[in-house]
Amino acid sequence: MTILGIADATVASLVRPVTGAGHDRDAVAERFARATWTSLAEPGDRVAGLVVAALGAEAALAALLDDREGRRLRHALAEAEVELDEAELTEGIARWTPRISKQDALLAFRQAARFGLSFVVPDDPDWPAGFADLGEHAPLGLWLRGHRQALGHLHRAIAIVGARAATGYGEHVTIEAAAGLADRGYAIVSGAAYGIDGAAHRAALASRATTIAFLAGGLDRFYPSGHDALIGRIVDHGAVVSEVPCGVAPTRWRFLQRNRLIAAATLATIVVEAGSRSGSLNTAGHAAALGRPLGAVPGPVTSPASAGCHRLLREYDAVCVTTAQEMAELAPLPETVADAEPETVEQAEAAGSRRPADPSGTRIRLLDALAPRSPRTPEKVAALSGLAVDRVRAELGLLALEGAVRERAGGWVRVAS
Amino acid sequence: MTILGIADATVASLVRPVTGAGHDRDAVAERFARATWTSLAEPGDRVAGLVVAALGAEAALAALLDDREGRRLRHALAEAEVELDEAELTEGIARWTPRISKQDALLAFRQAARFGLSFVVPDDPDWPAGFADLGEHAPLGLWLRGHRQALGHLHRAIAIVGARAATGYGEHVTIEAAAGLADRGYAIVSGAAYGIDGAAHRAALASRATTIAFLAGGLDRFYPSGHDALIGRIVDHGAVVSEVPCGVAPTRWRFLQRNRLIAAATLATIVVEAGSRSGSLNTAGHAAALGRPLGAVPGPVTSPASAGCHRLLREYDAVCVTTAQEMAELAPLPETVADAEPETVEQAEAAGSRRPADPSGTRIRLLDALAPRSPRTPEKVAALSGLAVDRVRAELGLLALEGAVRERAGGWVRVAS
Repeated sequence: MTILGIADATVASLVRPVTGAGHDRDAVAERFARATWTSLAEPGDRVAGLVVAALGAEAALAALLDDREGRRLRHALAEAEVELDEAELTEGIARWTPRISKQDALLAFRQAARFGLSFVVPDDPDWPAGFADLGEHAPLGLWLRGHRQALGHLHRAIAIVGARAATGYGEHVTIEAAAGLADRGYAIVSGAAYGIDGAAHRAALASRATTIAFLAGGLDRFYPSGHDALIGRIVDHGAVVSEVPCGVAPTRWRFLQRNRLIAAATLATIVVEAGSRSGSLNTAGHAAALGRPLGAVPGPVTSPASAGCHRLLREYDAVCVTTAQEMAELAPLPETVADAEPETVEQAEAAGSRRPADPSGTRIRLLDALAPRSPRTPEKVAALSGLAVDRVRAELGLLALEGAVRERAGGWVRVAS
Repeated sequence: MTILGIADATVASLVRPVTGAGHDRDAVAERFARATWTSLAEPGDRVAGLVVAALGAEAALAALLDDREGRRLRHALAEAEVELDEAELTEGIARWTPRISKQDALLAFRQAARFGLSFVVPDDPDWPAGFADLGEHAPLGLWLRGHRQALGHLHRAIAIVGARAATGYGEHVTIEAAAGLADRGYAIVSGAAYGIDGAAHRAALASRATTIAFLAGGLDRFYPSGHDALIGRIVDHGAVVSEVPCGVAPTRWRFLQRNRLIAAATLATIVVEAGSRSGSLNTAGHAAALGRPLGAVPGPVTSPASAGCHRLLREYDAVCVTTAQEMAELAPLPETVADAEPETVEQAEAAGSRRPADPSGTRIRLLDALAPRSPRTPEKVAALSGLAVDRVRAELGLLALEGAVRERAGGWVRVAS
């Protein structure tokens, strides 16, 4: 490997694929070049995505290194007949070249090796399938700290996100939700922030469920630092991932881009609490844009911490979710579709009161016309209920069979239910 | 007037139309016959609606009185070529005839006269226009106690309904909502029940807004009796209405039918709190079935009193409403469309964070890369932000004009906002 003149055993080991596939030198070099690209292009850099997809990371990087004005890169793209706006490409080259630095790259990779990171690329079997929906904005690679096999649980993962400034109510609902989803076999994804994110990860860990934290900065320093211990436990029992290499600080832009990964990697996104400016609304926006199911937990209209959720329900077609079961219904797992909880008696009756099984209301009207103690004749009941006497006699018979009414001396009475 | 042999000055005065139209004897007799029909047919009796619409109330009633087996009625319907299922008609006749009673009718009308009720029919100019959507299930007439002109405000009325077992939260939200809608020129309709209904009427009265209570029983005795005083105040300042005559008890069936009138008479229905078995879900169901806007107020998922509202949001496409302004937007009044409140700064920014005006994030990334104190060169900023140096220089110039950044000796700094 000669890219950037780096040929370093640690680095080589770092970028060596875990799988049998692609053990050959080319695959390793390609993987290594992708890792380098994550230090040149910002998250979501569409042009970088196009260039790397078209030429391959190694060829694209070699061309750029060979001629930093980008003539060779342009030539290679022309030969590959890649449709790319000239101005966009020029801007891209101008964005990437200032960052080409042997020292920085070496440092980043050494840190990665030091912290035992692995680097996952699209060809790897455990590359998150959901990233495909990001198209040109998909990440170039994913840095991972912890258990790489945790990625294998993303096909059954739900994202639970929300406000840093969560209320006791929000954290309570989050813990119930994460634990309930864990019991149903879901993995829990979040952003490791204070408030709702932290509660979601904690409840998942407590339930021994797989949990994965997506960070906005490099994995050599955890953010927020107040969650060092929590993120450390996620590393121990799950995985912490980022698309930027070690040494890269979490910035507002990188947080917004990180949110797109959370939405794309999971089956559905749940927002538990969100003020009207909460970043979790941005994650929700990505989920909606990707056509992923989006759930919002309602709260008191008097609580600013729920204003964002109510806005999602009101304006962005989010589904109102109030229990883990309702959240699970947003993205049913094949094996759990069957054992979805039946609706409660109350729910059934509420539905009933809206769509009575008894459209003419005969039975209700008949029972209305009966008293629990003083017996009434069918004629009297007919007059009171406004039903025909014959119909009253017939219905009384049926209701008697059900034990809802009883015949006494002098007429019929209602059996107190 | 000879129907039922009743010719009573009080009754005649009672049923005389208020308007210039229809002062003639026929109109009075027709009105009188409709009033009689309200004592024969239960609310929502489709067959009665068809028969009265086809033959006129007086002719239909006369035919029924003349031959209680209904031969004459059948004959008249056949002559008028009315399509009506024979079995349905037979059932109808069997329902109505047991109730034909000169004494009962006379008593009901005398009570009506005593309490100063008026009787409103579809030909009257103040007949609620919304009832048209009920088609064959429209009421045959409306008994009214209080200010008849209050009906003229139904074209700008919103229904606020909810659980009897309301919480402090629910009553607080109801009072805010009713007062806010009153300020915006809406009349408030509800069912005078304990809990949410009562709070809605009270807040409307306190705001000097028109409020109308729809009752399920006759207007000679108010239900619930604990709301005697409140309903009395609604009579004094607004109107209390029912489709059943005096002496008729409120039954479960009549409550369900009363709910259809609340939904049909108003522009929109708002459910503030509703347990999963609340009758207000039935009103909501009618509103949805009639294509009327339906709003539900969210609450804590831990509060059973909000379970019905969440169900409406989740399964019945109710709109999530959290403020009087959002409720008003369900049914804007022509003159108030203009002065709809602008969205708050927070809302605008929340929207911004979902749909950045700055899709490539250039400005965010650039500001991320600047510090408030230590100056940075454009080259440094370019490397940090991953933007082209030229682009950085250009953007810095624009941001300087906005006062977001400042050039110092040694480079650029961010101006703390």
